[in-house]
Amino acid sequence: MPSTIDDVMPPVPTVDAVNEMIEHLFPGSNNTCEGLGSDFAIAMREVADSELRPGAFISGPSQFGLADAALWYLVFGATGRIEPMALTSELSIRFLRPAQGRVLWARATLDVSGRRNVVGTVRVWCDDREHKPTATAQGTYVLPH
Amino acid sequence: MPSTIDDVMPPVPTVDAVNEMIEHLFPGSNNTCEGLGSDFAIAMREVADSELRPGAFISGPSQFGLADAALWYLVFGATGRIEPMALTSELSIRFLRPAQGRVLWARATLDVSGRRNVVGTVRVWCDDREHKPTATAQGTYVLPH
Amino acid sequence: MPSTIDDVMPPVPTVDAVNEMIEHLFPGSNNTCEGLGSDFAIAMREVADSELRPGAFISGPSQFGLADAALWYLVFGATGRIEPMALTSELSIRFLRPAQGRVLWARATLDVSGRRNVVGTVRVWCDDREHKPTATAQGTYVLPH
Amino acid sequence: MPSTIDDVMPPVPTVDAVNEMIEHLFPGSNNTCEGLGSDFAIAMREVADSELRPGAFISGPSQFGLADAALWYLVFGATGRIEPMALTSELSIRFLRPAQGRVLWARATLDVSGRRNVVGTVRVWCDDREHKPTATAQGTYVLPH
Repeated sequence: MPSTIDDVMPPVPTVDAVNEMIEHLFPGSNNTCEGLGSDFAIAMREVADSELRPGAFISGPSQFGLADAALWYLVFGATGRIEPMALTSELSIRFLRPAQGRVLWARATLDVSGRRNVVGTVRVWCDDREHKPTATAQGTYVLPH
Repeated sequence: MPSTIDDVMPPVPTVDAVNEMIEHLFPGSNNTCEGLGSDFAIAMREVADSELRPGAFISGPSQFGLADAALWYLVFGATGRIEPMALTSELSIRFLRPAQGRVLWARATLDVSGRRNVVGTVRVWCDDREHKPTATAQGTYVLPH
Repeated sequence: MPSTIDDVMPPVPTVDAVNEMIEHLFPGSNNTCEGLGSDFAIAMREVADSELRPGAFISGPSQFGLADAALWYLVFGATGRIEPMALTSELSIRFLRPAQGRVLWARATLDVSGRRNVVGTVRVWCDDREHKPTATAQGTYVLPH
Repeated sequence: MPSTIDDVMPPVPTVDAVNEMIEHLFPGSNNTCEGLGSDFAIAMREVADSELRPGAFISGPSQFGLADAALWYLVFGATGRIEPMALTSELSIRFLRPAQGRVLWARATLDVSGRRNVVGTVRVWCDDREHKPTATAQGTYVLPH
């Protein structure tokens, strides 16, 4: 009997399943999952006026929050399980240019998925300007045990 | 003629002056400055219910936001100028234990203050438990030029 | 007269020019540049026995050093100038799995190149196993002024 | 029977025991432990000429290596056990000013000691200038299980 990819790669949860969990457990969140695979995740957030700084710049903590959300979704894609209790262990972020726009995006890509931890790299941008990132981040999520 | 400390150390802005600027420029902010010196700053935030995760844990991005605010106030204390346009260049944060409480605190201490940058280390805790930090962070602010 | 890419993109120094500078200024270095473009750089190091830890694991500081070198080369590619006095401002590294092998590699990719700073993301691996990174890093170089 | 501090705080290994382990397992290391407690560790290194850059500056990777060593010793002090197989999980470092001198020092202070991880903050300086740090770092060690 042939071995298949299913032997080693768990099925990726659907975007809808992720967003239903968020809505159920975090009804106040503005972040949604817009794409998910075993080695990437895309997060999106419509920016509220209260997140804007003078000059209409999107605040750093808003960008951090979306990068953190993208890594969380990545945990679901990489492990094949929606794990609401996976927790950020550490995250570093660098701000690259002013963030102006109505929609903030973040794409997390997998560095490694282990038994205890998932590590990923995140790019943050505004509207349709993925080639002009406003922030870049890396971080670690720890899995519940 | 004797040299004095005033030759090298600029006067530290008052806590009231910092909070007036925040209220004026960032009317939606819940962060306030509660202490300021040339080498430290203390930030405080009363936690809103919307920042709580299941289990009444204060979210990571809320802690990041207060650590970032404490570093921003530290820039004012270290340079002697209230610089609203000082910007976070990079910040790394480590989460140490669950954050539960009604008031979140952050104390930033100065690592270096240069012509271009201010670097500091931040400890975050809940209520009166400064000896049980919930997060530790380090980061860099870049000064406007 | 049409504008061309040469108007905005400076020419990338050659790998040979980079390695000649290294040999001239840092004769003790074991790191070499093995690839360079305007948005990437590849660094290589033959691992000495003294860098091995028990179990023949390549030490963390050796991996940090090569990641740092790859970012330095990236500065040359992104700015079009060999700048020996560009300095690391900050660097964060995450170790992903044990590093075993004879040759250590690092690939830096550009996040942003500005007037003051260059920010990049780095992947480190052993021998021909680029798909099994042993470390991932991000950091900032500051340009001399 | 009274409870004592020994119920909760394991005895701290001696500096001599740490240095004997280093000499035994890492005979090529130039780092030594110069102080150790349950919440701090001091590491020292006499700088070799090969670690100097043009201008007699101590290289960034040398400073990273000593910061990493100080965190490793801190694991021994915080857990009460000499754990050679404790491994760096992640470390971020910021360089604050040029490092010039013959002896490099690093002091790690404990942020948290948990079942899986130890997190600490590190200050690096040259000779007797602890008040003029050349680098500041934070990082996480993971304990063997």
